[in-house]
Amino acid sequence: MEKVSLADKFAAFSDFWSPKIVGEVNDLHVKIAKFKGEFVWHQHDEADELFLVIKGTLRIRLRSREVTVGEGEFFIVPKGVEHLPVADDECHVLLLEPKGVVNTGNVVN
Amino acid sequence: MEKVSLADKFAAFSDFWSPKIVGEVNDLHVKIAKFKGEFVWHQHDEADELFLVIKGTLRIRLRSREVTVGEGEFFIVPKGVEHLPVADDECHVLLLEPKGVVNTGNVVN
Repeated sequence: MEKVSLADKFAAFSDFWSPKIVGEVNDLHVKIAKFKGEFVWHQHDEADELFLVIKGTLRIRLRSREVTVGEGEFFIVPKGVEHLPVADDECHVLLLEPKGVVNTGNVVN
Repeated sequence: MEKVSLADKFAAFSDFWSPKIVGEVNDLHVKIAKFKGEFVWHQHDEADELFLVIKGTLRIRLRSREVTVGEGEFFIVPKGVEHLPVADDECHVLLLEPKGVVNTGNVVN
């Protein structure tokens, strides 16, 4: 395997809300995505999801509160917890999810 | 759960080669560590290991070659592959490993 440059991988695409797999570690996928605007409320019944912000600011709305995640910060949404990612401006995120997880969770889009 | 600031977590310790658990995502631990100098050759027979460099430069020596991993880059050492992490200067790294993995792998120290 080769090393992966996050900057190079982010430079290679421009679509939003479309995670790209950039690595596999055990049964998890390492993904990166660009967020802008508002996603949809959803949950992953069987999987925790980690959001590490590489650039920009990500708001993660939960039903009871909102978490603002800045560069160099991460937040883990526990399995089964409804969440809505929101990026007021373009935001670059590294995601960790088990292989097979769909980004909309329980919501079919 | 609360968000985690990598900068805050790195500021909270100063020992080298001693990974700290900063998060759990499914059956993986998110760890951070400071490296300086040379570790020991080892392998993890059952687990891939991801090294994401947050600050500095990490050299990962493999038996057949060496990989230089800079800031914003990651490298995944596949399970069973011998490796020797080397940091010529202090280097800050985020690690992903299954819960229960010992940092020296097959080597008892």
